[in-house]
Parts: sequence; structure tokens; C-alpha cells
Amino acid sequence: MAPTLEQVRALDSADPLRPFRGRFFLPDGIIYLDGNSLGALPKAAIARQREMVEEEWGSELIRSWNTRGWIEAPQRVGAKIAPLIGAKPNEVIVADSTSVNLFKLIVAAAALAPARRQLLSEAGNFHTDLHIAAGAAELAGLRLDIVEREGLDSAVGPDTNLLLLTHVHFKAGFRFDMAEVTARAKAAGATTLWDLSHSAGAVPLDLNRDGAELAVGCGYKYLNGGPGAPAFLYVAEHLQERLLSPLRGWMGHAEPFAFTDEYRPAPGMDRFLVGTPPMLSLAGLESGVESFEGADMNALWAKSVALFDLFADLAEAHCPQLECISPRDPERRGSHISFRHANAFELCQALIADGVIGDFRAPDVARFGLTPLYLGFEDVREAVDRMRAILDSGRWRDPRYGVRGKVT
Amino acid sequence: MAPTLEQVRALDSADPLRPFRGRFFLPDGIIYLDGNSLGALPKAAIARQREMVEEEWGSELIRSWNTRGWIEAPQRVGAKIAPLIGAKPNEVIVADSTSVNLFKLIVAAAALAPARRQLLSEAGNFHTDLHIAAGAAELAGLRLDIVEREGLDSAVGPDTNLLLLTHVHFKAGFRFDMAEVTARAKAAGATTLWDLSHSAGAVPLDLNRDGAELAVGCGYKYLNGGPGAPAFLYVAEHLQERLLSPLRGWMGHAEPFAFTDEYRPAPGMDRFLVGTPPMLSLAGLESGVESFEGADMNALWAKSVALFDLFADLAEAHCPQLECISPRDPERRGSHISFRHANAFELCQALIADGVIGDFRAPDVARFGLTPLYLGFEDVREAVDRMRAILDSGRWRDPRYGVRGKVT
Repeated sequence: MAPTLEQVRALDSADPLRPFRGRFFLPDGIIYLDGNSLGALPKAAIARQREMVEEEWGSELIRSWNTRGWIEAPQRVGAKIAPLIGAKPNEVIVADSTSVNLFKLIVAAAALAPARRQLLSEAGNFHTDLHIAAGAAELAGLRLDIVEREGLDSAVGPDTNLLLLTHVHFKAGFRFDMAEVTARAKAAGATTLWDLSHSAGAVPLDLNRDGAELAVGCGYKYLNGGPGAPAFLYVAEHLQERLLSPLRGWMGHAEPFAFTDEYRPAPGMDRFLVGTPPMLSLAGLESGVESFEGADMNALWAKSVALFDLFADLAEAHCPQLECISPRDPERRGSHISFRHANAFELCQALIADGVIGDFRAPDVARFGLTPLYLGFEDVREAVDRMRAILDSGRWRDPRYGVRGKVT
Repeated sequence: MAPTLEQVRALDSADPLRPFRGRFFLPDGIIYLDGNSLGALPKAAIARQREMVEEEWGSELIRSWNTRGWIEAPQRVGAKIAPLIGAKPNEVIVADSTSVNLFKLIVAAAALAPARRQLLSEAGNFHTDLHIAAGAAELAGLRLDIVEREGLDSAVGPDTNLLLLTHVHFKAGFRFDMAEVTARAKAAGATTLWDLSHSAGAVPLDLNRDGAELAVGCGYKYLNGGPGAPAFLYVAEHLQERLLSPLRGWMGHAEPFAFTDEYRPAPGMDRFLVGTPPMLSLAGLESGVESFEGADMNALWAKSVALFDLFADLAEAHCPQLECISPRDPERRGSHISFRHANAFELCQALIADGVIGDFRAPDVARFGLTPLYLGFEDVREAVDRMRAILDSGRWRDPRYGVRGKVT
């Protein structure tokens, strides 16, 4: 039996995370189910960006590298991300994009076991991971093997150098068991590199406990860092000194301001820095990460599970046209819910026109992000109501919803 | 004879670029001579950043990729940089950092002439260029030869794959003759890659006329793009389809939203994109580039020359303790002036305390950027006056000016 309006309102009233919603700017009339693509704006980011632009850039100018802590920002923000993913503060640093960071770690990891030539990843993994892997493999002399999920276990073997996996899949939301997969790879002598783009800030993560060695993650999704916010890297402490980034920029030098021709990698995670960090975007990420302050990650996940179950139940009851393709087992899923529909593109467009913002993922998936910090149970109910109205009326057939832009 | 206050004021009154100064926020009491390290804040960037954060991120959210032109920003801003460097609009794109872009082009260029194994650069080149070159050379199977400037000509030969040079040197400001060097390398069968970090927006550039094939440049110096603003790449039209970036991210894919496992490079410059661009920082760069709108680049350079000559003349007359190490020939220099002094560090610190912001460059160089868009002749006179007072009094000996921070 699908819950009533009163029942979902009671859920919101009892929600221990409800106060966090007030930290975000949420436009009137919009139900935002795309925080897994671009997190909502933390209100604190508004004042922070003004300070960054008008005071730090405008008035302090170049002095801000010292006086406003710009130079330590990659480490400082990394240390703030660390508790969200179960890492030590000195194991996380912010730099570049997820793609660039993947490249660094794939090439660096290849040298850990030079006799092993296989770089293994999953078919249908987020495509930038596979493309970056192909380019990195070519340069590092690795062979990229892309196999279906079910074949991964048996593909890990004595020639496996690196296993590159996305922890939570971008499409249906399948989640790997990080501890089990990492341990199995390690037993075979291989290193594992996790892409946490759809995990960090959303699902329970304990990289240290789970024995994770390498990871990268995205700043602009659940971490609410703003469009194109810088990404982060994680390297387990014991591996840091054994890895050398192929992108040896001055910010990763032991003495960036000594201006020497010879490269000496900085100790620890600093060696994974390359060029000057984009401070305006990095400040956005810091505000985003700070929006988690005081949030209990277990409560966050419990709410994600409840939001998902509510969404799935309501859709099952009211939208029989949709096939839920996300795992129902909470241990095997992320914090988004995906449905298959032959006209998912048109459906998403019609939903956006009706104020429900989700994501279309080619060829036939409608995807909805569930962000416990700012999404309520009533939002989910209202979203499914609006979706039901579109599906039942067939309004998605309106030709204007079939027009495809550059980004879909 | 050093000019009087009245004379420099007359120069400012007659300066055709004087109105551009009003486009920038310049803090009271500060003479900013570090626009070659971090350009000043364009006033337009204040409103633009508010719009970006509050409206585009906050209200429009993910829709801004389409509705606010985020997705075309790397191309759009690249096209705005193009006229400043004498390139066609489709030859310039904004992406990542200068360091990361150098890596892309070095590795991509290596494949143009696979039999040639030498990557040649200048000793004392900006160190990130040399470090990146070393990492790229290792992966691409090139041999990095670093030779003194005087030896470069004779070092270019039948084994030279790529000549990597910084057009204007970061320290003394020596400027290569782009046309001549490029032509000589080309005659030997080698490609040339120019780092325009200290050139773009400052010295006359005509990449097309000078036959330049590859270039990268910085967004946060003379282009006024804000701290750590994204960088740009230039590839001559005829070479674009022959180059493949080693960093094959989804934004460089022919169909970024088709989500296919196979990589197909986008046509033209788009293939040099990697991950999602940092939009807050990219918007800053767009404001910075727009601050040049309507400025005649010849007038800009004429003013730079005049500012330099005034600075050099005044320093020669009043600061005999300093040795000018920048070339006096305008054709062989950039838009900054550098002096050697055994205690350049302390001198720079004392100058900052007195409101004159320049840069110390290890081990003994004081460097002053001359930015014609917002610097006046009276500023230069006042700066040298304050420097003279510090030198004559020996006030730089105050122990507090010897304290070294992380960034110097």
C-alpha cells in the first residue's frame, strides 16, 4: 500500500537530517533529483564565493596564496573529504578532474608490478574511465581487458596489474562489495583502483577498513562542490611513496618554488598535484564538503535507503509502465534509482517541464538521484505523482519533448 | 633625466588605454605589479560570478549545461582568446591546467614523427614545463635533452621530434623570435610547442603568421582569469586531426553522451578536452578575457614598452643597488621587468609591506609585471620611489622581511 501524504509528511517530520535541507538553496517548485549529477548549491557557498572573488582575488590578490590559505587548499579540502570515505586526512588530496586523476593512478600503479600487463575493467563502466584507461594502458604498456561484470572474478589472475572499477555504477546503481573485491584482487597480486564518483557523500564508505589501495572521486555530484568542481584522489598511506605520477607538475614537486630543472616528487599525496588549482571552483568544493558537517553518515545512508524504497514502492504501485533496473538489495546499490522505459528521453524532458529534474541516460534509462541532505519524503511522493500523471496521460508524446540538445 | 610627477601624469592623460583601468578592481594604496602571476579582478567578474553561483548553479542547476551555455564554454572562451594570439577561433580551446595541456601535446606530438626521439627544451625553462616534459618523454619513448639557450639552434637536428620552449621566460623575460625559431625547427623536420604563459595578453602574438603549430597558455596571468583559472591549448588547424590526446576523457569524445565503451576522438580541438570543466573558474576566465574587449593589441604593447622603459630608466637613476636583467630590446622581451639583488627576497617583502606587490623568484630576482590594461605611468614612478626609499634606508634588513612562507 503506497503511503499517504500524511504518512510521508510524518516521515519528513521524524527525519533527523531534515535540518540540513536548510543549508541548501532549492528553487521554488522544483523537485531536484539530479544531485548525483550536479549537487545543489549550499547557501554558504554564496557568501564564500563573494569572499573568494571580491576579497581574496580582488583585494588580497596574489597574497592570498599565503594569507588566505590557497596554497594548502588541495590538502585541506582533501582532509575534509577523508572522514566521508573512511580515509586518513593525509590520504586524500583534491586535484584536476576525475578523468585526469584516473590517468595518474593507472600509470603510476602499472609500475608497482611491471611484469603484470593486464589492466582489467568492467564493460559498460562509465565511459570516461574506459577511455582514459585505454589511453593510459597504451602508454604504460598495459593490455586493457574489458569484461562483463560476471566475468570479472575469473578474469583476475597472475597477469592482472590493476583492477579498475566504479564502486557504484552510474546507470542502474549496482554497487560492488569493496572489501571482498579488493581482497580477492590482492590475493591474486593485483591492485584495485576504485572510482567513487557515485559513492562519495552518498553510500557508506570505509576505505581503510575495506583495504582500498587507490581511489578517485568526483567533487560535483553528492559532494555538492559546484559544476565541474575539482576531483579527489585517495592513495593508502603505505603506497604513497611507491607511486610516481606521470603528470609531474610544479605543485607536485618537493620544492615548488625552488625552480630547479630536476624533478623531485613531493612526499605523500602532494606528488599527485600538477598545475595551479582552480581556486574559485575549489572554494565551491570546500563549501560543498562543509555542507556535510555534523551529518551522521549512517543516518544519511539509512535515509537514502528509505527514500529509495519509497520511490520504488510508489513507482511500482502507480507507474507500471516503468521497469526498475536498480538493485533492490541496499547492500548492492547506490543512492539513485533508475527505470527503463523505451521513451525515457521524452519522459525526462516532460518531467523537467513539470519541475521534476532527473537524468536521461542513453539509450533508455531515466535516473533519479536521492540526496538525503536536502531531499524529503514528500518530494519523492510528489515526483512520482507528477511522473504518473505524465505516463498516464501520455503527455511525454508531445513533440517538444523529443528535441535533443547537446547534453541530454 | 628621470621624468617628473607632472610628466608621468601627462603620460597617463594621453594614454589611449587609460579607460580600461576602470574595468578592474584595484585595492586602495596598492601598486600591483604582479599581474603576470595573478591578473587583477575585472569588475565584471563580480556580477558574473554571482550570476554563475546564484542563478546558474543555484536556480537552473543541471539545466545550465544547455540553457546557460556551459557545455560550449571551453570552445567559446577559446574563440575569445584566439584574436589575442593571432589564431583562428577553432584553433583554441580552454581546458585543464597549462601543465596538463603540455603533457597532452608532448605525447600527441611524439606520434607525428615516431622515428625521431629527441624532445628538446631549454635549461632554466619554467620548471613545470621541464618536469612535465620528463614524465611525458618517459611514457612516449622520447629522450629529453635540456640545453642552454645558446645551444638550442645547434641541438635541433634530424632526431628532434619536438622543440618545447617558453616564448617569454618567466624570470628575466627573454623572448624568442617565434617565427624564426619555428621555421628553423620546421626546416629540420621538428615540431615546435610554445608555452605562452608569459605572452598571451601581454606581447604581440600572431601564431598563424609565425607558423606556430602547437601552443599552450595560462589563464590567470595577463588574461586576468582568476586564481588557477583554466589554461588553453592551440593546435594549428592542419594538425588537429593528426593528433590524439593521451588523456581521452569523455568531453573529448565524438559523442560524450552516447556512453559507448569505445573511444572515438571528437573532431578538431574538442578532442583535447578531458573531464567536466570547472565552471566557476571558467566563468572567471571568460570575464578576464572579456576585459580585453576593444583594446588594440598594438596599443597595449606600445604601452608595455613605455612602462618598461620608464621603470628601467627610473631604477637606473635611483636604484643603483639593482641590476636589471631583462633585455632592453623590446623585440626580445616580455611585459615584465626583473632585477637582480642579493636580498631580492627581503626587498620584495619590504615592498609588499609598503604596498608595492611584485614577485620574488629564487634565488635572487625581484620581478615586476607590467599590465597595460590597468597599470599607469604614475604607478611605475611611485613604485620605484618606494623601492628607492627601502633600498636607501636599508629597511629591507628588518628581520620580519626575512620570514619565508610556503609560497615566495
